[in-house]
Amino acid sequence: MHTPSPAIGSADPRTLYQAACDHARRTAVLASVESLLGWDEQTKLPTAAGAHRAEQVGAVAALVHASRTDRAQGERLERLAESELARTGTEEEQGSIRRLHRDYQKQVRLPARLVEETARVCIDGQQAWVVARRESDWSRMAPWLERIFALKREQAACQLPALDPYDSLLDDYEPGALSSDVAAVFDRLRPKIVELVQACTSSAIRPDDAVLRRQYPLAAQERFVREVASRIGFDFSRGRLDTSTHPFCSTAGPHDCRLTTRWDENFLPTSLFGVLHEAGHGLYEQGLPDGAYGLPGGEAASLGVHESQSRLWENLVGRSSEFWAWCFPLAREAFPDALSQSSAAEVQRALLTVRPSLIRVEADEVTYNLHIMMRFDLERSVIRGDLAVADLPEAWNARFERDFGIRPPSDAEGVLQDIHWSAGLIGYFPTYTMGNIFAAQLMAAAERSMPGLRNDLASGRFAGLLQWLRERVHSSGRLRDPQALVTAATGEAVSERWLLESLWHRYGPPHGLAR
Amino acid sequence: MHTPSPAIGSADPRTLYQAACDHARRTAVLASVESLLGWDEQTKLPTAAGAHRAEQVGAVAALVHASRTDRAQGERLERLAESELARTGTEEEQGSIRRLHRDYQKQVRLPARLVEETARVCIDGQQAWVVARRESDWSRMAPWLERIFALKREQAACQLPALDPYDSLLDDYEPGALSSDVAAVFDRLRPKIVELVQACTSSAIRPDDAVLRRQYPLAAQERFVREVASRIGFDFSRGRLDTSTHPFCSTAGPHDCRLTTRWDENFLPTSLFGVLHEAGHGLYEQGLPDGAYGLPGGEAASLGVHESQSRLWENLVGRSSEFWAWCFPLAREAFPDALSQSSAAEVQRALLTVRPSLIRVEADEVTYNLHIMMRFDLERSVIRGDLAVADLPEAWNARFERDFGIRPPSDAEGVLQDIHWSAGLIGYFPTYTMGNIFAAQLMAAAERSMPGLRNDLASGRFAGLLQWLRERVHSSGRLRDPQALVTAATGEAVSERWLLESLWHRYGPPHGLAR
Repeated sequence: MHTPSPAIGSADPRTLYQAACDHARRTAVLASVESLLGWDEQTKLPTAAGAHRAEQVGAVAALVHASRTDRAQGERLERLAESELARTGTEEEQGSIRRLHRDYQKQVRLPARLVEETARVCIDGQQAWVVARRESDWSRMAPWLERIFALKREQAACQLPALDPYDSLLDDYEPGALSSDVAAVFDRLRPKIVELVQACTSSAIRPDDAVLRRQYPLAAQERFVREVASRIGFDFSRGRLDTSTHPFCSTAGPHDCRLTTRWDENFLPTSLFGVLHEAGHGLYEQGLPDGAYGLPGGEAASLGVHESQSRLWENLVGRSSEFWAWCFPLAREAFPDALSQSSAAEVQRALLTVRPSLIRVEADEVTYNLHIMMRFDLERSVIRGDLAVADLPEAWNARFERDFGIRPPSDAEGVLQDIHWSAGLIGYFPTYTMGNIFAAQLMAAAERSMPGLRNDLASGRFAGLLQWLRERVHSSGRLRDPQALVTAATGEAVSERWLLESLWHRYGPPHGLAR
Repeated sequence: MHTPSPAIGSADPRTLYQAACDHARRTAVLASVESLLGWDEQTKLPTAAGAHRAEQVGAVAALVHASRTDRAQGERLERLAESELARTGTEEEQGSIRRLHRDYQKQVRLPARLVEETARVCIDGQQAWVVARRESDWSRMAPWLERIFALKREQAACQLPALDPYDSLLDDYEPGALSSDVAAVFDRLRPKIVELVQACTSSAIRPDDAVLRRQYPLAAQERFVREVASRIGFDFSRGRLDTSTHPFCSTAGPHDCRLTTRWDENFLPTSLFGVLHEAGHGLYEQGLPDGAYGLPGGEAASLGVHESQSRLWENLVGRSSEFWAWCFPLAREAFPDALSQSSAAEVQRALLTVRPSLIRVEADEVTYNLHIMMRFDLERSVIRGDLAVADLPEAWNARFERDFGIRPPSDAEGVLQDIHWSAGLIGYFPTYTMGNIFAAQLMAAAERSMPGLRNDLASGRFAGLLQWLRERVHSSGRLRDPQALVTAATGEAVSERWLLESLWHRYGPPHGLAR
């Protein structure tokens, strides 16, 4: 330890608090430049410019890291955490001090050597993954994953040494979540989803998605999805929509939220549900209090809460009969050749197709969670040391066969399909299903508190639902833990029952299933 | 002065040189991030995101400035400037030391207070200019220009105190140029251009540009101008083309050169000559030695040399009969409705219309230089103190009437039309006409050394000309002063005679003028 510098040592808590907030905002401005570099890389960068972009990102990332681990800021936060303000300040002051102090401690406990090595190995690992997946060659990936899992174990032990290592990693994406709790939820959820999938796929009555596979001209798709995104509330004066290989939502400032999607002329859902999903993320970003930009009160609560917003708009709104009662006339006007002989009901029913498949990112809403839960179990076993990296392919295939009834014919369609592990994103996967759980619980609560909600959706009035989410979810930033946030928003503890109920309620009838 | 730090004090010159180059490269990477932020602002930024973008630019600009004025770098450069290497090194070593040392001295002599105040006043000044121009209200602009000219006079005195103040400012854009030399050239050039303009406009034989004012569908224009840019050598794997209100070329890395243009469905030259011009800049940027990225050997020599490249491709290539012999079939294929009844000769002749007009950015190639020369004289008089800012509108109108024979009916179409002064760009205007002078002299030399050049252009073979420019102009970066560069490339001292000869040669015949 060292002696605090005199200015910080003698300042009163409120002055320190202002200085700490100013520093956090300045750091956020720099981090938003890094975010823009990433967006540009995925959407606009000339093919030959990749190496220079890596240098630009490296330079800005180093400045962001230096700012996040700035010693004077650390001293301010240490003093603030021990001050009266941390106990008697407003909710915003208390929450900001707690979050900023914890962020700082996690960052500063990581040796610079570990941060640099992880960054470098993950960049090389992702490049190795591209080749390994293309050639379905596990042997090209295995050595990188050995190193990456080892580095992540080291990171886990450094940043939150008191926690179970997997929980330490999970905390980066879902603050405060414990993997034992997640595992308990998933263990209850999995057999019931398997049951629903089997009931759907063995039923004689099943939706047919042929109507979605007609010709949907791309220029009309672009106008149509922009209109839909605007109508649900995405503000294009504060955002954009572009094209990328993998859809994402990226925020480069409090009024600069950028969505991307991909396009398939012969399958409308690729762009439409890509945009509904990303616009769901975007509505959350656009709903964060902009006066608290760069502070915990102006930042998203977690990846799980973020995913709850995207899934809510994509699945719970976008696949509903009410949504299509409003949207179908728009769609028929945009795509007269494809839809003039169809109905809203036909399209909406087609969107409820359940079809077990090998690839997570192509999965339907029901089977999706099975993909996630197996990844969670596998990565947790590797971090715990119960499963060797070398044994991942076999463990993957055996588990897949157990949950889906089919065995992946190749590693490219199995253990090598996702970029996450090669990019060092371990502890990330479970947030997808947590998002689905949060989304169903939030939607059920919204319906309870707004009896006219379904009518509103059927008339294209989305402002009430958005306002409800703004007040209950968006407005508190990350001042609360995700579970506490969802509990407060819905009036009950987080439970998987709403997700199960929603899936059975929506997918049962079109498959001839009563419950 | 302070004592050099031991590491720098005792290092040998070659070690110091490497360290100085590494520092310069790191600074260039950060500066390239600032450049990307500027590009994005002009092409992609959501309308509500301007204030945050200003914060991002401010944060990165401050880091770039800190890096450019880094004290350890200054010590290295001081020692290198006094070392043997500065006299006996390779041309690259000597030139790099000289340039980097001079850049550093200029930067470090500016008080931080002056840099910040200038940046702030120029941002506000540009906003005031937008309103002043829109409302044609000089009184809204005058107080800002008073402050800006005063700040620029102070900057001039600080950064190169031994020079005439205007020359100190000119040095930022055209290193080593002296305004007395520029004035002597312009004073010879002006009456001869006035004579040509009068001869053209009073002739009974004059080109008619009706063929260019037909309907040119925008989607076809986009494909067409991309094809033309590719064919002259612009490498889209190392660059892009986007849309902006004002066309520009921006470089975000050694393989990341971004052009913009605007579009007019009823006037083909807007996009085509916008793109030829910006692609000319782009070919220069793409031709700089990428191994010297961030060092003087990898950077453009001056704005004048840059402009020579854009003008050469836009005017000397793009308006030539040879270019249209090749390009017309492409154009007719792209725009069958507009051009099926036309000929290459008709289009090319239409491109040689001379029409004196009030607005510089809409001027034809001949009258353009008259716009520039009057701005040079006016801004030089203000800096010298011979002309008060308050008297600029009257001085503008009187001079315009003398050169063009017409008096601007409003300040919006007169003294308020350009953004430059309100943005603090004083000493910038003359580089446009210097570029035209360099371009004509370079093209004449290229024709002398490649007798088959005109035939090549008529066959769409542009690689020979581009290679000649790469070797003679692009390859030495800014290691030499612009005048020395053009002199070495062409084998003779820089002279306005080639520009005059080129203009008379190309514009005389279509106006029935012999000489």
